[in-house]
Amino acid sequence: MLLKIDQERKTSLYIQLYKQLKRAIIENRLTANSKLPPIRVIADELEINPATVVKAYNLLEREELIYKKVGSGSYVSPPGKPYILRGSNRSVLIEDTDEELTSGINFASATPTPDLFPVVDFKKVINRVLDRDGGESFVYQKSQGYYPLRESIQIYLHELGIDQEVKRIQVVSGAQQAIDLLARTLVDFDDRVIVEEPTYSGALSAFLNRGAHISSFPLEHDGIDLDSLENFLMAEDVSLIYIMTSFQNPTGITWSREKKEGLLRLASRYNFLIIEDDCLSDLYYRGKRPISLKSYDLEDRVIYIKSFSKVFMPGLRMAFMVLPENLIPAIQAAKYTADISCSGLSQRAFDLYLREGFLNTHIEKMRELFKRRFQLMERKINSFPSGIKLAFRPGGGLYFWLTLPDDFNLEKFYLLALKKGVAFLPGRLFSIKDKELPCFRLSFAAVDENEIEEGMDLLNQLLCQI
Amino acid sequence: MLLKIDQERKTSLYIQLYKQLKRAIIENRLTANSKLPPIRVIADELEINPATVVKAYNLLEREELIYKKVGSGSYVSPPGKPYILRGSNRSVLIEDTDEELTSGINFASATPTPDLFPVVDFKKVINRVLDRDGGESFVYQKSQGYYPLRESIQIYLHELGIDQEVKRIQVVSGAQQAIDLLARTLVDFDDRVIVEEPTYSGALSAFLNRGAHISSFPLEHDGIDLDSLENFLMAEDVSLIYIMTSFQNPTGITWSREKKEGLLRLASRYNFLIIEDDCLSDLYYRGKRPISLKSYDLEDRVIYIKSFSKVFMPGLRMAFMVLPENLIPAIQAAKYTADISCSGLSQRAFDLYLREGFLNTHIEKMRELFKRRFQLMERKINSFPSGIKLAFRPGGGLYFWLTLPDDFNLEKFYLLALKKGVAFLPGRLFSIKDKELPCFRLSFAAVDENEIEEGMDLLNQLLCQI
Repeated sequence: MLLKIDQERKTSLYIQLYKQLKRAIIENRLTANSKLPPIRVIADELEINPATVVKAYNLLEREELIYKKVGSGSYVSPPGKPYILRGSNRSVLIEDTDEELTSGINFASATPTPDLFPVVDFKKVINRVLDRDGGESFVYQKSQGYYPLRESIQIYLHELGIDQEVKRIQVVSGAQQAIDLLARTLVDFDDRVIVEEPTYSGALSAFLNRGAHISSFPLEHDGIDLDSLENFLMAEDVSLIYIMTSFQNPTGITWSREKKEGLLRLASRYNFLIIEDDCLSDLYYRGKRPISLKSYDLEDRVIYIKSFSKVFMPGLRMAFMVLPENLIPAIQAAKYTADISCSGLSQRAFDLYLREGFLNTHIEKMRELFKRRFQLMERKINSFPSGIKLAFRPGGGLYFWLTLPDDFNLEKFYLLALKKGVAFLPGRLFSIKDKELPCFRLSFAAVDENEIEEGMDLLNQLLCQI
Repeated sequence: MLLKIDQERKTSLYIQLYKQLKRAIIENRLTANSKLPPIRVIADELEINPATVVKAYNLLEREELIYKKVGSGSYVSPPGKPYILRGSNRSVLIEDTDEELTSGINFASATPTPDLFPVVDFKKVINRVLDRDGGESFVYQKSQGYYPLRESIQIYLHELGIDQEVKRIQVVSGAQQAIDLLARTLVDFDDRVIVEEPTYSGALSAFLNRGAHISSFPLEHDGIDLDSLENFLMAEDVSLIYIMTSFQNPTGITWSREKKEGLLRLASRYNFLIIEDDCLSDLYYRGKRPISLKSYDLEDRVIYIKSFSKVFMPGLRMAFMVLPENLIPAIQAAKYTADISCSGLSQRAFDLYLREGFLNTHIEKMRELFKRRFQLMERKINSFPSGIKLAFRPGGGLYFWLTLPDDFNLEKFYLLALKKGVAFLPGRLFSIKDKELPCFRLSFAAVDENEIEEGMDLLNQLLCQI
């Protein structure tokens, strides 16, 4: 590899070096798992200070383009391979699009199987839209979304206790796009973003892509510890915090009202915005639907994201967000730059589906069905060997988060289970710290009750053996 | 406004200042067209060097968040308002999603009207897909796209003389998303990107969003002048160049074979990649279909983007790109971070539409129809008063680019025409240099022959009056 440094250029030396290495990795000229030259060697060759090389390597590591092995040096990260425990996943977790697991029992996938989709009803609304609107179904929509759909969403939100003007509602192609548009609007290189630990890796990717520093705070059963968060806020400038308040992915916890209100007080005191990602609040099995953080938000500091991928149809790519008033133009511009607008036909069909009340009926059906799976899986977990424990007792959602004894060999367990045809997701896929968490996530989105019986018994056997 | 600078922090002072001002603008605390404090005032207040303030202001100006008035100071840019000539458009041109122009004669829009969409055929394929695939139509697709669609695209490309493996084909939600994914993968803060002058503003937005320096090279009738490009390349590191080789937007020019080959030689010598954006090569009216740059690309340096928005249905959001082999994993990861994958139903329906040969039949129909409009509009332009000239004589596409005498009052002409119900796009919307180009673009995508007759006669009258 040929590295060049130009002392005359305005760009700092470590940025020049970082950019050349990054380009070589992105373009695959430095291949996965190959070792980078030692710092001293590069420094000598280019006649620069070793500290400059260290700074360049640190930047690459932060973007997960390289990883370090203690006592050995730095290596090029392989591109995303989430089902393999080794190496870095370069912050891309393709958990729901991987075909390797279409056979076997899939406790890894977080999305419902196609037999649960309301295809008949949806086909009806598509055809009604095509007959009603003809070619209009295929014109560009506004970047904010098809207006009647935004009105339907306003009514839907009203039923959830969230009252918002239509102008604040932005339609997006799934929650991932919402997070990404927010990241590109609100996060700049070197900004500090706070997340829950553990959390959803797709959000980490979007923030890392902007060059953010990410700090994570461990979850308790009712949210993160606000005292330690405040200590941090006193020392550091934070622009954004990303959380899931209801049946969090992967832990299943729900933020308490106290902590929700406490977080809003901190946001006011330390001047930051909060992204509230909600894809599961519809799936409550004990008591009532959790109340969103947005409902308590008097200072317009919460950006509320609602996705239907987990309770409806993921491949439709349909979600929305509620924006603080002052962010409306910036997010509209970001959506335009990203992909102009969402599919007109999908928006019109989803609008009709909402207006006709189909969605609520469907969600109730899904809640009943998932509740049975939830109860069955919880019972099965309770019969796991001692030491393998539920980290939290969720009140809804699609996940269970299990903790393991410290000396437990998670990788061995994971690979053995995969061999027997049972998949789940190991803890480190949900961590910003690139290390093996002694935890794993079980999801019951894509398995029926028979599969839960069979798969959980199999895991139980393996756990007893290890 | 409260500005704070912390001399102890690692972040440079000008970056701290830039970020606070940027956030205030994004969050609308600094409102559009309000004046920023003079450099000296901020420097005194914060006890910093005026040069530091200048650097922060320059960054803001590069991102089009503020604009300067000579002799008066710096002002906050208003958010995008493309149909108004004044102020900055903050690099967002909502040319095709603005409803203001749905009445009147629209020479501004670049997309066909809904009456031209093949709704009947497309409804057929949607229903066939729903009957055939049921719920599978709504599962997540792979980030690269639905495999059978990528196969159909391979066959479609083969007919165009481009032979590429399926693995290189990435499905995206429109050409804008393709450009944006490439920008976020290949362009870092401070990188140098080259574009044609004039060019498509959506591409400029995507590059500016990454903090790129953009340099533009004026177009000649057969592409940009390669000698001046090479002089530039000798002095500057360039990572990327963005061009439209066929019936360019807005000029209508087509790159000659000589210049295509010359550009590839330069790419090889100076080690850069080329984005070839093709949305109009199907609409050739004189001679044969232009040959793509990608067809001549032996070193895998061209990224080919093909969109169907202009010849098919824009609101379907369907396009693809052909990637150099080494970029495949990085772009796949970028697509995942951006929005996971494209709509499954749209991909499956479009696949069937391609397989059944519907697209080719439809495009031939569109070519005939647009050719008649093209010829009519060209005739009408030739009867414009002398001084108002076609800058180039296009061989196809949807646009004419007209130049005006230097002393011509374009703003007055533009507003008068709008008042009479005729819209077009003024030159500066296509320029990275935020100034009034003495040019404008006429498009015949959204107007029928009667409207062309009437609208062009009206413009002719106005031109004679001014």
